[in-house]
Amino acid sequence: MAPVKNGRHLFNEVPVGYPVPGKTTVYDESQTIDLETVPLNGGILIKTLSFSIDPYMRGRMRAATKKSYSPPYAIGEPLGNHGVGVVLRSENTSFKARDHVWAFLPFQEYVVQTDVAHVKLLENKENIPWSNYVGAAGMPGQTAYLGWKIFSKAKKGETVFVTTGAGPVGSIVAQLAKLGGLKVIASAGSDEKVEFMKKIGVDIAFNYKTTDTVKVLEEHGPIDIYWDNVGGATLEAALDAANPYARFIECGMISQYNQTSPYGVKTLMNIVGKRLSLNGFIVSDHMTPENVKEFYDTIPAMIAKGELVFLEDKKYGLDKVGEAILDVQSGKNHGKSVIVVAEE
Amino acid sequence: MAPVKNGRHLFNEVPVGYPVPGKTTVYDESQTIDLETVPLNGGILIKTLSFSIDPYMRGRMRAATKKSYSPPYAIGEPLGNHGVGVVLRSENTSFKARDHVWAFLPFQEYVVQTDVAHVKLLENKENIPWSNYVGAAGMPGQTAYLGWKIFSKAKKGETVFVTTGAGPVGSIVAQLAKLGGLKVIASAGSDEKVEFMKKIGVDIAFNYKTTDTVKVLEEHGPIDIYWDNVGGATLEAALDAANPYARFIECGMISQYNQTSPYGVKTLMNIVGKRLSLNGFIVSDHMTPENVKEFYDTIPAMIAKGELVFLEDKKYGLDKVGEAILDVQSGKNHGKSVIVVAEE
Repeated sequence: MAPVKNGRHLFNEVPVGYPVPGKTTVYDESQTIDLETVPLNGGILIKTLSFSIDPYMRGRMRAATKKSYSPPYAIGEPLGNHGVGVVLRSENTSFKARDHVWAFLPFQEYVVQTDVAHVKLLENKENIPWSNYVGAAGMPGQTAYLGWKIFSKAKKGETVFVTTGAGPVGSIVAQLAKLGGLKVIASAGSDEKVEFMKKIGVDIAFNYKTTDTVKVLEEHGPIDIYWDNVGGATLEAALDAANPYARFIECGMISQYNQTSPYGVKTLMNIVGKRLSLNGFIVSDHMTPENVKEFYDTIPAMIAKGELVFLEDKKYGLDKVGEAILDVQSGKNHGKSVIVVAEE
Repeated sequence: MAPVKNGRHLFNEVPVGYPVPGKTTVYDESQTIDLETVPLNGGILIKTLSFSIDPYMRGRMRAATKKSYSPPYAIGEPLGNHGVGVVLRSENTSFKARDHVWAFLPFQEYVVQTDVAHVKLLENKENIPWSNYVGAAGMPGQTAYLGWKIFSKAKKGETVFVTTGAGPVGSIVAQLAKLGGLKVIASAGSDEKVEFMKKIGVDIAFNYKTTDTVKVLEEHGPIDIYWDNVGGATLEAALDAANPYARFIECGMISQYNQTSPYGVKTLMNIVGKRLSLNGFIVSDHMTPENVKEFYDTIPAMIAKGELVFLEDKKYGLDKVGEAILDVQSGKNHGKSVIVVAEE
């Protein structure tokens, strides 16, 4: 068989402020691959199906000299993130052709993966859509499930405030909180998202662009748990609205990722007076075999039964990665942002 | 015996910014007390010896309508805080005349205490000065000892940054950290305090008014533990200088107590990226019988043996309370601020 195009989406330059599609990142079709003869060196050949586009990716679009928790993307190389693929060929006994897998993969149509230590075989007994495995049944779902389990110390009857409540993490947190008997206040950036949050059971759903967060929390708080995906002025308001001994789960600060000058939070005195605890949280720290097993034993079944509801915002083709990233950074996506590279 | 003067120090008006001696609080000699005949109603009559003047008292000088962790002082009534006294008369079998006690007491020369549930009998087998029981062997010492024990998760070889390192809490924290095998960076607001910090074993002692905290932490950090007594720009710098998984013990934010507009902290993104934990801490939450026993079994003996060194800044007479409070708020005190009401 002749070589085929292996489309890739590359990191092109470090952005200042919001990333610009076609400038910060570019789609490239210069490479080809021979699917039958490409050497596997004991590994597997994966055809990628779906990629996750996540807020944290902005943090990797930085100068290589700047330290952070995740490594920077390399200029001229493909972006990468968690994705689902199907095995085309295998030289490893743990995988065979037609298996579906979940792994951290470069943004390209075909990937030869020699190190398969972190490639997870997806059984999908529940027969949910493969794209779910980069969302509610993937890293964002694990973030919501494990962060809530480990840090919330939630008690029935308490009140939680969830930011980005229509997003892939926030919407799962909100539903887990409702299942636990909590009152849920949740914010998002459009009326459409507010409608979705109401549908999944959020008690107080509001559009932070048209409704004052401070007033909502004054009226419907105080809060015992704050799930922070946004930081900045919202975190400032949550600190003022916290009950004594409230727990703050610091999962992300997307309002700050594209700011050249970060917002100064003025309400930190509440931490002492109210004995608050704030815990920074990155899901990869907690992906122990026990936690991961518990997650996959629990969440896909809940999705299949309709106990967890979520939205996916699918874009088709690796050439759409730049737009998808900008949508996520600016809050224009409706639900979990997924790049569909191929249906099967 | 004829009635004697019962001098008191009263809360007079809510301050804006720093409290003003003679205006925010006033000394009053209008009351008298007959020490032989005053009814005790089953309680005890205490002659006060020493009072502690603490940073947190500023927070109680507020409008009665404003909520916080400690109740507001009442206008026209005496201030109050932890003090040591000697029992003159007792109608309670747990106390007898000449006993020394530690309790939260109003700022007056003589106090009839009917509710003795929170009055602690001081045995002082170690024969340390009674004034120590409002400092290193009192609430500030408990703050340092219990905060460090519960929240530091300190490991030998780690680095801690302690603010107000010459003060009653900070200097004990610094010494406990040295005993635990940590490297200690500590700041204070005068060269005299820096000399004292060096004397007690602080590795990197600096005057934050003449040396840039950011540069000190860049050179001698990163830090694994931050003991925060100051908040504001120092907290901002500590967040940037933190190692992954660093623990922040949020004990106080004195740089902010007298500000009408608080400082906006811009480095909170570190909480997520470095998975920091910040814990607000108020010692009274942790004064369980076990913890208090452990403290009194440990600290007075260490003081008597010279294993813990500290300074006391004594002022004589309840009329000096206003000055002492202002000194503590503006950092002019040298060591633990104590009002000595009477020597014995």
